[in-house]
Amino acid sequence: MIELYHCDGARSFRALWMLEELGLDYRLRMLPFPPRFLARDYLEINPLGTVPFMIVDGTGMSESAAIAQYLADTHPEAGLSVAPSDPAYADYLNFLHMGEATLTFPQTLYFRYTMLEPTERRNPQVAEDYKRWFLKRLEAAMGMIDGRDHACAGRFTAADISVGYAIKFAEALGLVDDLPQAAVEYFRKLEARPAYGRAITVERDNAVE
Amino acid sequence: MIELYHCDGARSFRALWMLEELGLDYRLRMLPFPPRFLARDYLEINPLGTVPFMIVDGTGMSESAAIAQYLADTHPEAGLSVAPSDPAYADYLNFLHMGEATLTFPQTLYFRYTMLEPTERRNPQVAEDYKRWFLKRLEAAMGMIDGRDHACAGRFTAADISVGYAIKFAEALGLVDDLPQAAVEYFRKLEARPAYGRAITVERDNAVE
Repeated sequence: MIELYHCDGARSFRALWMLEELGLDYRLRMLPFPPRFLARDYLEINPLGTVPFMIVDGTGMSESAAIAQYLADTHPEAGLSVAPSDPAYADYLNFLHMGEATLTFPQTLYFRYTMLEPTERRNPQVAEDYKRWFLKRLEAAMGMIDGRDHACAGRFTAADISVGYAIKFAEALGLVDDLPQAAVEYFRKLEARPAYGRAITVERDNAVE
Repeated sequence: MIELYHCDGARSFRALWMLEELGLDYRLRMLPFPPRFLARDYLEINPLGTVPFMIVDGTGMSESAAIAQYLADTHPEAGLSVAPSDPAYADYLNFLHMGEATLTFPQTLYFRYTMLEPTERRNPQVAEDYKRWFLKRLEAAMGMIDGRDHACAGRFTAADISVGYAIKFAEALGLVDDLPQAAVEYFRKLEARPAYGRAITVERDNAVE
C-alpha cells in the first residue's frame, strides 16, 4: 500500500495527480500547512517536515517530480512514461526536472517573501526578482512546447504533471494575469483531465479542519 | 557528436563529469560567466543564456541533473544508471532530483545575494535564510546516505553526480566549514574518482580568458 503525505495545494499534488492517473490504491494523509509547526508528530515520519513524503515498498520519497516519474516508470503499461530508447527521452527528463527545479522553486521565494513570512521579514525585491525569473523561464518552456497539448512525446506523460503543477501553483499565488497565454491554454487542457479532477475532489474531501 | 556549453564551476559540471565517467566523445564549449551578458551570441543557441545546454541527437537539454540521468540511462552498459525494476529506483530518482532542486537551488540564493548582485541589492537575511535551508536539507540527505560511499544502489550512479555537485558548489561558495562532516567525507571519495579529475582538467585546459 502506497502512503502519501500531502498539504492542500502543495507540490505533493503532483504525486496525488499521478496516483489518480494510474488508478492505484493509496492512502492519503492530509496535513495542515506548514506541517513542521502544526503536525509535530509528522516529524517522526519525515524529520524535515516537508511534503510530499510518499512511502512505497518501504522507501520514502520526498521529491515530487521524482515521485511522478517513479510511478509512471514502474507502471509502463499505463503509457505515462517515456523509455530511454524513445527519441523523446531527453525532452521527457528535461521537462520533469524543469517543472520543479526551474519553474516551482523560484515561485516558493515569491510565496515566502510576500505571504508566508511575518511582515518585518517580507521582501518585495526578492519576491519580484524570482517572479520575473520564473516568468522568463516559463515563457522559454512554452516556446519549447510550441502550442502543442503536451510537453513531449506527443502524448500526456509525467512531464506534463511536473510542468502543469508549476502553472497551477502560479495561479494559486495570484499570478494568472502575468502568465504567458500559451501557459494558461496548456494548463486548461491538463486540468480538464478526469484524473486531475479526481485528485482535486480527493484533496477537498480529505481537507483538514 | 554531443556539444556541451559550460561555465567554470557551474552546475553544468554535472554533465561534464558524467561525460568523462562514460568516456564519450563530446565537444566542450566554455563560456564566460554570466554568458547572457558576456557571450551574447550564445543567446541564439540558448535564449535563456543559462548553462548547462547540451545538444544531443538534435535535442537541447538545459537541466543538469536530467542530463546526468539521460547520459547514464542511455548507456546502461556502463552501470551508472538504476533500472525501474531495481529496488533502489525510488532512491535513485529521489536523489537525482534532490541534488538540484533541494540542494543546489537554495545555494544560488546565497550566491546571488552575497556575491553576484551589486552591493545595494545584496541581502544578508535572504542569503542566511537559504544557507540554513540548504544545510538542514543536506544534513537530512546525509542521514539517508548514512555513511555509505554512495547515495543509492550500493554503487556509484548518476545520483552521486547530482548530490556530489551540490557539495562541490558549497565548497566553492566558501561554506566548507558549515558542512556536515559526513557530507565532506562522502564528497572526498567522489572527487577522488579518475573521471572527476579528468573533468576538472578538461575544464581548466579549456578555460576562457
